[in-house]
Amino acid sequence: MSARRVLVTGATGFVGAHAVPALERRGFEVHALGRRPPSGGCTTFHPVDLLDAPAVRRIVEAIGASHLLHLAWYAEPGLYWRSALNLDWVGASLTLVRAFRECGGQRAVAAGTCAEYAWGPERLREDALCAPSTLYGAAKDSTRRVLEAYAAETGLSFAWGRLFFLYGPGEKAGRLVSDAMRALRAGERFGTTAGYQRRDFSYVVDVASAFAILMDSDVSGPINVGSGKAVPIRDLLEKIWRITGQNGLINYGAHPCTNSEPLAIEADVTRLQKEVGFIPQLDLDSGLAETFKNEK
Amino acid sequence: MSARRVLVTGATGFVGAHAVPALERRGFEVHALGRRPPSGGCTTFHPVDLLDAPAVRRIVEAIGASHLLHLAWYAEPGLYWRSALNLDWVGASLTLVRAFRECGGQRAVAAGTCAEYAWGPERLREDALCAPSTLYGAAKDSTRRVLEAYAAETGLSFAWGRLFFLYGPGEKAGRLVSDAMRALRAGERFGTTAGYQRRDFSYVVDVASAFAILMDSDVSGPINVGSGKAVPIRDLLEKIWRITGQNGLINYGAHPCTNSEPLAIEADVTRLQKEVGFIPQLDLDSGLAETFKNEK
Repeated sequence: MSARRVLVTGATGFVGAHAVPALERRGFEVHALGRRPPSGGCTTFHPVDLLDAPAVRRIVEAIGASHLLHLAWYAEPGLYWRSALNLDWVGASLTLVRAFRECGGQRAVAAGTCAEYAWGPERLREDALCAPSTLYGAAKDSTRRVLEAYAAETGLSFAWGRLFFLYGPGEKAGRLVSDAMRALRAGERFGTTAGYQRRDFSYVVDVASAFAILMDSDVSGPINVGSGKAVPIRDLLEKIWRITGQNGLINYGAHPCTNSEPLAIEADVTRLQKEVGFIPQLDLDSGLAETFKNEK
Repeated sequence: MSARRVLVTGATGFVGAHAVPALERRGFEVHALGRRPPSGGCTTFHPVDLLDAPAVRRIVEAIGASHLLHLAWYAEPGLYWRSALNLDWVGASLTLVRAFRECGGQRAVAAGTCAEYAWGPERLREDALCAPSTLYGAAKDSTRRVLEAYAAETGLSFAWGRLFFLYGPGEKAGRLVSDAMRALRAGERFGTTAGYQRRDFSYVVDVASAFAILMDSDVSGPINVGSGKAVPIRDLLEKIWRITGQNGLINYGAHPCTNSEPLAIEADVTRLQKEVGFIPQLDLDSGLAETFKNEK
């Protein structure tokens, strides 16, 4: 079997940290690019600022990878929706994929987002209208549009995994599940929205594994990487207080829902299940229990 | 009246060379950015490679312009539709507009293209579906999508002038009108397609003037900059042989039409006429006559 060498960006990120071992389990030789080395594994690490185009070009050329998993993006909780840094990551992503392809790369997978879609009441299928209401969504949507055209032009095999909502070990502070779990475990009150909106949550380890399987396939185009079952935020938080044993500390309605927040965001996962052949290992209850155990 | 300082990219290009004097006539102090200085006028020239992000940032900061006209893009005839350089120009455009805004810029206008649209039989209005069939079209379309979201986020006044087909003084070789005129004037045969497809042609001096008026307005979003009247290529070429007096030299059907070439590409120019208030000075006959005279 010929060596399959995958270049991974965002390897220290929330998904990336779990994607690296998943890729290694599938026999990939992993080369991580970024500012900080990933922990553990037999990954080769190449320090580089992904916004430094000439440096990226040099390293991509030196590695000569057959596969690329591009997960890196600006993702500071609370800030990334509206940040001008999204513009830099459009350019950096195009530069990276172009360098990869021009150095002989064959197969690329990158991370998209449910924020590319025009959010509406329907379950979101990959061919639904993309009309993002945020700068982050517009930047991701546009990156995909250019990369799909570039892939078609150059014969690159290219897939775009659209992330929905995530939780699990390693989640940063400032995000729903991590903040709720920390607050309730500490016996502190947790303020949140009214909580009736439904969101599609997946366990990050499962999502990382889905990306590894997607990488190892020849499925192309956009693929929703979600659970297919949106739950009301209230139900999710109820599961968390049952795990932590801290009822009565959740303050619903403490934060307003903005107008741009839709009632439901739910993935149609037909492509993920049928074409990629991915089935998540943990349901929401088990995933939350695992998260609680791991973060102790 | 306060000084209005406009930063212009692509000032030596086909549209740019005519846009600079048009802006000066409207009282703008023009600062051109690029590799080569524009000819004539009282333009200040700042040499810079627009693909060098840090250098662009430094110069934009030093100039402190209130207005930006971004026309530069990779445009080598025959090559630009499919070139990977389109990816670089997405990034460069985002970097430029961001730097301009962050240095206090108020109003930006950039050049789009009719190739952003899903080409069909209908006259193209600005709200028509954008689904480019080319890498060039995808790159321009995506650049606009990100810049519109960025403008909405930061309060930048932003318009996107979609160019249709152009002709006029200064047109490069490798394009229809320039090549046909040169060949027929020289008494050489001119091979072309069957020529039944209809295209929306504008005189470049008029288009440049439309951009100057658009810059001087507060109209935002995409604006078709076209004539509103597509003509069959055969009619256009007939006008050219009448001007050159060289009948019988046109070899129709010498080149095939590709499948992606639509029967008609025609601009709806309602926004341009009603909102921007622009009316072209020359019709097709006069514009071609002027072009012939100028290129002698």
